[in-house]
Amino acid sequence: MAMAFHPLAASRVHLSPLLPVPAAAAVAGAPASAHRRRFSAIVATAAASATTEFDFKSYMGERAASVNRALDAAIPAGDPPAALHEAMRYALLAGGKRVRPALCLAACGIAGGREAWAMPPAAAVEMVHTMSLVHDDLPCMDDDDLRRGKPTCHVVFGEPIAVLAGDALLSLAFRHMASVDSYPPDVDPEKHPARVVRAIGELARCIGSEGLVAGQVVDLEMTGSTETVPLERLEYIHLHKTAALLEASVVVDDILDVTKSSEELGKTAGKDLASDKTTYPKLLGLDKSREFAEKLLCDATEQLEGFDKEKAAPLLHLANYIAYRQN
Amino acid sequence: MAMAFHPLAASRVHLSPLLPVPAAAAVAGAPASAHRRRFSAIVATAAASATTEFDFKSYMGERAASVNRALDAAIPAGDPPAALHEAMRYALLAGGKRVRPALCLAACGIAGGREAWAMPPAAAVEMVHTMSLVHDDLPCMDDDDLRRGKPTCHVVFGEPIAVLAGDALLSLAFRHMASVDSYPPDVDPEKHPARVVRAIGELARCIGSEGLVAGQVVDLEMTGSTETVPLERLEYIHLHKTAALLEASVVVDDILDVTKSSEELGKTAGKDLASDKTTYPKLLGLDKSREFAEKLLCDATEQLEGFDKEKAAPLLHLANYIAYRQN
Repeated sequence: MAMAFHPLAASRVHLSPLLPVPAAAAVAGAPASAHRRRFSAIVATAAASATTEFDFKSYMGERAASVNRALDAAIPAGDPPAALHEAMRYALLAGGKRVRPALCLAACGIAGGREAWAMPPAAAVEMVHTMSLVHDDLPCMDDDDLRRGKPTCHVVFGEPIAVLAGDALLSLAFRHMASVDSYPPDVDPEKHPARVVRAIGELARCIGSEGLVAGQVVDLEMTGSTETVPLERLEYIHLHKTAALLEASVVVDDILDVTKSSEELGKTAGKDLASDKTTYPKLLGLDKSREFAEKLLCDATEQLEGFDKEKAAPLLHLANYIAYRQN
Repeated sequence: MAMAFHPLAASRVHLSPLLPVPAAAAVAGAPASAHRRRFSAIVATAAASATTEFDFKSYMGERAASVNRALDAAIPAGDPPAALHEAMRYALLAGGKRVRPALCLAACGIAGGREAWAMPPAAAVEMVHTMSLVHDDLPCMDDDDLRRGKPTCHVVFGEPIAVLAGDALLSLAFRHMASVDSYPPDVDPEKHPARVVRAIGELARCIGSEGLVAGQVVDLEMTGSTETVPLERLEYIHLHKTAALLEASVVVDDILDVTKSSEELGKTAGKDLASDKTTYPKLLGLDKSREFAEKLLCDATEQLEGFDKEKAAPLLHLANYIAYRQN
């Protein structure tokens, strides 16, 4: 079967589903850059229109179900070592809205690609995201006991297994992207190996000392610091740490952390403030933080103009959802 | 420039430099399998001959120097976040004989390939190996304070940074293999992206819940267990945990741990026994363990017969080194 498009080459339309940091940079209002302009060119214009006929809830539900099926199939349930696989599945299949994979799939859609192609990278991004949550929750890091309303991985399985489950999830993300078996029967990644290599390289870059991990390091350095944290430093943390496509959502996550109860949030409410964690609400106040989030949404929406409205609808709604999500 | 050979395709001559677990399986006497036979076909026959004119010490020294240069260049020394990069460099450039990379390069050599091609995978394997050491040394794991004669990463930089440095090294390994910049100017990995994808997939497989991590999980389960550990279980641990090409060396590492002082070993002597860690010496006794190592060396040597003697010399010497190394 001829293949006109590969989602890993989504940069053809100026958005790669595997470029979380630049995407975050755009949404979080980082200094202007080529990457920012690129992402902005996606997450906008089709904006206020094209919304009425699009059923966002169904869209998200269907994508989450597909992603969950892919994740479920990627980790054998009963195989030894059982404790490790159980811990990986516990963390990975704990729910979550799969916003990052949805963004990945929506980006593929706006580029005119087939979603089937985008599923392995979408699943890989979620594995990486889950790894970062499991490691960040560790007692020696943020020491969090609750995640998505459930006890965190190390609380249930112990610290050693939690560390190792994170390591295994990280390697699984790369194995998943590199394996022909991860792709649906009617698509053939072996015909486009250079794209797979490029996507793997980009994903790896966004995790390491220029991405996710770098953000967590600076976050840890700032936590409990007595000096006033400069806004740029907070932006650095978010641009890096959140490095999994959807990092603007963290702005709203921070707000939620102040105003919601543990039950609503599914995590320990107020924990970020209690632990002296640097957040936008702490630095700017709640109202200014909300304004900031809305301004970013406007910027993003503007730049979706010019794209096919129907194809842009999922991204448009995702941006809106991220800015206003209640949980 | 035309390129006749790519080390990532070394399986053409029945050995992939990126197949640590099967290689370990072969050397450690695992149940016969295709992989075992493949590796055996390499690590043998040229054996007792061809040794006199080969300067093993110079060979290893030159390879270690090349690998160290590649590793040094892969991590920016002063770039932020400084603590993270410092920790990564501390763990990665702490010395070590670079036996795994040397095996990788030697395997490329016997296959008739150019070593320049094998350097990125060789460096990646060392990054993965270092990651596993850093995480295994953590207080919640083996709680080791010394490694290669120096305080372990978490002792110097703290636990959070040690966890994150491991994560960053793991992602860097994949980034390194995927990046054109890792390859010497006169070789072009973009001409053989399918091989790069395959090698990345294999490396990822050997790390996760079927490899390194699986071995550490079972090792942790056995540590402190009151039941007698079956030999198969110990073999499982070594076949998996040691998953970085050279895992037969662990047999000797275990012996060293009993007989050497901390100063000689560069790690806390007797620690494995003190912590009730399962080892071959503990299970079989020292003499039987030595015999076992020698038998494995014989098996390996036999199977190097039939290869070009000059090309097989490095592998032959490496197998010998691994079986008899004093440290």
